[in-house]
Amino acid sequence: MQLPYYDREIMDRFFRPRAVAIVGVSRTTGAGTFNILENLLDYGYTGRLYPVNPNAAEILGVRCYASVRELPEVPDLAIITLPRHLVPQAARDCAKTGIRAIIVVTQGFAEADAEGARLQEEFLAALRTAGARMIGPNTLGTVNVFERFSSSFAPIRRTEPLPTGMICQTGFFLAVDLAPSVGLGIGVDVGNAVDLGVVECLGYLADDDRLQVIAIHLEGLDRGREFFELAREVTRRKPVLVLKTARSAAGAEVAGSHTGSLAGEDAVYQAAFDQAGVLRVGDVDELDDVVKAFLHLPPLRGKRVAIVTATGGGGIMAVDACSDYGLELATFGEGTLAELRAIAPSWFQPGNPMDVWPATIGKPYPPTFAHIFTLILNDPGVDAVLCIGGAMATTGPDLADFIEAAAGLQRDKPIVWWVQGQSAPEIAARVERSRTVAVYPSPERAVRALARLYEYYSRVHGRAIDPPVAVPGLDAVAAGRRLGATGPGFMGPEAFDLLADYGIKVAPWGRAASPAEAGRLADALGYPVAVKAFGPGLVHKSDRGAVALDLRSRQEAEAAATSVLERCPDACGLLVQRFVPAGYEVILGGKQDAQFGPVVLLGTGGVLTELVQDVCLGLAPLSWHEAARMLGKTRVFQVLSGLRGKAPGDVDALLGCLVRLSWLVANHPEILELDVNPLLVLPAGQGCVAVDARVRVAGREETVGC
Amino acid sequence: MQLPYYDREIMDRFFRPRAVAIVGVSRTTGAGTFNILENLLDYGYTGRLYPVNPNAAEILGVRCYASVRELPEVPDLAIITLPRHLVPQAARDCAKTGIRAIIVVTQGFAEADAEGARLQEEFLAALRTAGARMIGPNTLGTVNVFERFSSSFAPIRRTEPLPTGMICQTGFFLAVDLAPSVGLGIGVDVGNAVDLGVVECLGYLADDDRLQVIAIHLEGLDRGREFFELAREVTRRKPVLVLKTARSAAGAEVAGSHTGSLAGEDAVYQAAFDQAGVLRVGDVDELDDVVKAFLHLPPLRGKRVAIVTATGGGGIMAVDACSDYGLELATFGEGTLAELRAIAPSWFQPGNPMDVWPATIGKPYPPTFAHIFTLILNDPGVDAVLCIGGAMATTGPDLADFIEAAAGLQRDKPIVWWVQGQSAPEIAARVERSRTVAVYPSPERAVRALARLYEYYSRVHGRAIDPPVAVPGLDAVAAGRRLGATGPGFMGPEAFDLLADYGIKVAPWGRAASPAEAGRLADALGYPVAVKAFGPGLVHKSDRGAVALDLRSRQEAEAAATSVLERCPDACGLLVQRFVPAGYEVILGGKQDAQFGPVVLLGTGGVLTELVQDVCLGLAPLSWHEAARMLGKTRVFQVLSGLRGKAPGDVDALLGCLVRLSWLVANHPEILELDVNPLLVLPAGQGCVAVDARVRVAGREETVGC
Repeated sequence: MQLPYYDREIMDRFFRPRAVAIVGVSRTTGAGTFNILENLLDYGYTGRLYPVNPNAAEILGVRCYASVRELPEVPDLAIITLPRHLVPQAARDCAKTGIRAIIVVTQGFAEADAEGARLQEEFLAALRTAGARMIGPNTLGTVNVFERFSSSFAPIRRTEPLPTGMICQTGFFLAVDLAPSVGLGIGVDVGNAVDLGVVECLGYLADDDRLQVIAIHLEGLDRGREFFELAREVTRRKPVLVLKTARSAAGAEVAGSHTGSLAGEDAVYQAAFDQAGVLRVGDVDELDDVVKAFLHLPPLRGKRVAIVTATGGGGIMAVDACSDYGLELATFGEGTLAELRAIAPSWFQPGNPMDVWPATIGKPYPPTFAHIFTLILNDPGVDAVLCIGGAMATTGPDLADFIEAAAGLQRDKPIVWWVQGQSAPEIAARVERSRTVAVYPSPERAVRALARLYEYYSRVHGRAIDPPVAVPGLDAVAAGRRLGATGPGFMGPEAFDLLADYGIKVAPWGRAASPAEAGRLADALGYPVAVKAFGPGLVHKSDRGAVALDLRSRQEAEAAATSVLERCPDACGLLVQRFVPAGYEVILGGKQDAQFGPVVLLGTGGVLTELVQDVCLGLAPLSWHEAARMLGKTRVFQVLSGLRGKAPGDVDALLGCLVRLSWLVANHPEILELDVNPLLVLPAGQGCVAVDARVRVAGREETVGC
Repeated sequence: MQLPYYDREIMDRFFRPRAVAIVGVSRTTGAGTFNILENLLDYGYTGRLYPVNPNAAEILGVRCYASVRELPEVPDLAIITLPRHLVPQAARDCAKTGIRAIIVVTQGFAEADAEGARLQEEFLAALRTAGARMIGPNTLGTVNVFERFSSSFAPIRRTEPLPTGMICQTGFFLAVDLAPSVGLGIGVDVGNAVDLGVVECLGYLADDDRLQVIAIHLEGLDRGREFFELAREVTRRKPVLVLKTARSAAGAEVAGSHTGSLAGEDAVYQAAFDQAGVLRVGDVDELDDVVKAFLHLPPLRGKRVAIVTATGGGGIMAVDACSDYGLELATFGEGTLAELRAIAPSWFQPGNPMDVWPATIGKPYPPTFAHIFTLILNDPGVDAVLCIGGAMATTGPDLADFIEAAAGLQRDKPIVWWVQGQSAPEIAARVERSRTVAVYPSPERAVRALARLYEYYSRVHGRAIDPPVAVPGLDAVAAGRRLGATGPGFMGPEAFDLLADYGIKVAPWGRAASPAEAGRLADALGYPVAVKAFGPGLVHKSDRGAVALDLRSRQEAEAAATSVLERCPDACGLLVQRFVPAGYEVILGGKQDAQFGPVVLLGTGGVLTELVQDVCLGLAPLSWHEAARMLGKTRVFQVLSGLRGKAPGDVDALLGCLVRLSWLVANHPEILELDVNPLLVLPAGQGCVAVDARVRVAGREETVGC
């Protein structure tokens, strides 16, 4: 079934056009002139080429046309590479001619200045009117290695196609034959992405069965929610890796002037990637490494790694790396151990890591190493082998041949090899012929690649769909009415009612206008109670002395109410609430993210929230499974599980609150921000109670509800 | 002045022997036989060689001897490579002959089994008696590239010596010509390091003026304190990099069977490295990268980095990396900006990162790039330049030549270049000829290398000595007497007096045996008071209900004392203390580390200490400067600086307490563990008060003071 969000007929024009117009092709050719026509000819494109240049009759033997209107046919695609002020007219000409796919290579538009933004708007409008679609501006366009087509102004080296799809926001990844071990099948630089963007390209590339892995370089996304929903589907079929840059504040600012991207909040991207099963990589090295793992290696079906090493010290580095990346050391079976003992000297205790050096003393090194490697690879308790062979010029290449042969007999387990030193490239080339071995330049990178392989296998690939399903007891009608009645700005204490509409338990409460009324209300609620002042200046209530807790009599309640009002003369009124004496303090939050829409937050709550820095985000609405994953990533989860002998908290109820809150912010986009801090998690079986809540509602004029 | 901890005459025998005996050399030679004699001949050693093998008259044309006792002279060094059971006799023979330096290559000793440990003890005793010194066992020994000597059984490739010294616990780093960009001058594998170890080798290598950088691979150290004190001196002269492995629990366990190292607690190593100015690297890549930076680049005197890039997207990655590693983006001067504007199209706003692409349209690419690069390199607001040139085969090599020429004109600023792609090796080779440029395979690695360069320049190199000096008001005599009187085990409330002996203020307190006595004592102390039960089972007092706070009358104090005793029938007694109503909660701690001796800890205190995970360690005693650095690394420092409009805490007083506590644990090694939690930090000018303290004192039989 075709994925959503793209039109195959249109996308094919960009990636496999049968006829192409190049508008603004230069007469200068040769190294360093970045001539697209020349590149296409060199690359071996076999479709029909129509250079458009009013000042030339032919370029490189290809007939030129003065205008797109004079072409003998309507080409599938036009590539525009004129100076920016000429682009709008050219785009109009293309559209009028009936060309439906246009790549605007030229830069200097919305990413540059106001005049550029105006020009961009102008030609975009012309294309939209004519029903044409565009990639760019400010782009290298597309590369299709299978069919030898590219719109790149940088020369593209002829390579064998590899099953990798690449979507990026800089042509660098396509032009500089980056990541030589990775290679490319189909790639696209989306540039400013003002029309077609990452979402359409992801759908198109994901549907191409020739591609096994999709790699994405991303500075920012306008359409985060669509990306998230599409990626969640794609990752079930094939791995999607993302290198998200513009992570830092400074980087985000620069991204605005590079491709006009709004980088957005990095933690939200992280949550979206994680929830969609997208593997986020930290840098170009990791992108390269992980793509290589997916291309070379079979799935990693467990986390038990064996380390076979010619250096004890290297084995220890690999053990550290396994610990860092959450993989385990395999335990060898008795049969394997017995065979290893038979090879090694009597004093040597074989184990994992297996230091082969003692066993090779006085024996021919490569075959002995390969024999040990084979024994361990075949142990049923081993899911993957990390091999540290040593790239000694005298023995390395022989060893590579032995390992290649051994690996060929067991194709179900990933094998990674750390090779370093002068002979490393030769060894890597030999051993990777087997296509079940991937070579890495450090133990950390080898283990990291295995870990991402396992992450994909265990969590993402082919998983049962676990979509968020509505939970019972959500009264969206009442909540909507309440939000409408409140109007824009901060909600007053009726925020508690809003939570209650979605089935989140709140401590019983009421409003009081005076200390006397507070006393009467306290009697009605039952003791102990808390008394709080509320109002626009009272967001951090405890810092302002606006809260009195654990009041045990009417007298105490009235006295506290008087004090609180004295300290907070700007209060709109008093709130009296049943006091919940104990519970684990958790913060729940929600907001509307500019890129990804409704988002929720969970973490350690209370006054120390900012200090503890223990929060996890998720895209709303959440499934129960997603809520549980979020909780599992926080430190407060350990506390709730029973720290220092204390009773465990009611985790099930907490998950329920989180899921309900996620529906609240998803169903009501007018809720701009929402904090429940603290939500008190009571001992298991006793539920959770919200004791403070703050809600900001959208609207033109923000006021504060009293 | 020669550094301490080594004897040059002895060390020279290991690294530059004029005559060498090889005991146990094999008759088999050729690739894969790991023959030390053959290696030495191939390597070009020019000293006198004495192979010892009773079964051969000569090997490779060199006369063999049946025993070391038959040699025509007493060689400087003997290399023993016999099976382990023959090593003790051979060692005795060497010692008797008068050989004073011995490398034991053989493995299978204390790292292997009990019999190995026994054999090791045996030959070590023989060497000690004879006054001989040893490197090993379980080692590759030494490599001296300057003088073409090596004891390695793995062949050593002939290379030009580089000014790098390497000390490691695996021969891998020496044998596999690891990190080809780094190279080597002098290296040593200390193996099991049961006699000479890292400390002696560090002193010896640091004193060698031919070496500019010392790189260390470390699994564990027995003599951490000596290492720390020596390294603190060495780093003032030249950079010391450490790759500390066996970081994880699993890694530490394996290290025990690799070189018999006790890996120790990683956080303490981190503190020691940091305090000694040792740059810790995370993996072999970083080791390689940072050594390269020190070898190629001039000092980085500021943190203002300029990015000159052919790809906007790559520039953003570099900006992210600068943010990650604490470097800043340079601001270009008006003159530079004006010249850049003159080159670029009108719509382009030059800035940092400087995307050169727009400026090169229609111009020859390499010279235009180099022109921009030169303008920026010469801007006085720029401390270093990161160049992203693009390794396009068509233009890359030319660009490299231009950059090399430009860099040659300005040798005071480090230049790093990210090159990736097929032409990267050629480009790197060309551009690095200049020796003021270092090439890296990713922007992150380039920026990380710059950051370590700056860290060394700004913090370590040539810094004024800031040794810990004794502070006034430390009564070591009283404290020693008190510790002696207490005896082994946990101290009772007199732990407060111990703090007071060192000038740390404690809340006034007294002991009470009964609620009535507690009441009387409370009257005497003045209200409010706290009442606490103490005793062996009451380490986490608040969890046990052993604490009542803020008691405002004798009646309340007596009632609280009664309740506390009811809840804690195992209490040894009651402590009544003036209650300090408010303050920032900090934890101070101290302990004796097996490797590094006295250590102190500072962090967020209170009941949430474990959840917040905000602690920093330091080796005691601390200077004020070191104490301030420790505090600056904690999150609680931000809180103390005034969070959300609150009054800042008395940071000066806190530093005083930390320094005093560091002297307490340094002067009294019988204090095994010490926790002050919480120390309440009052508003600035009002000091700090310790309100709970726990001290464990060394001794055979541990009891609990009551």
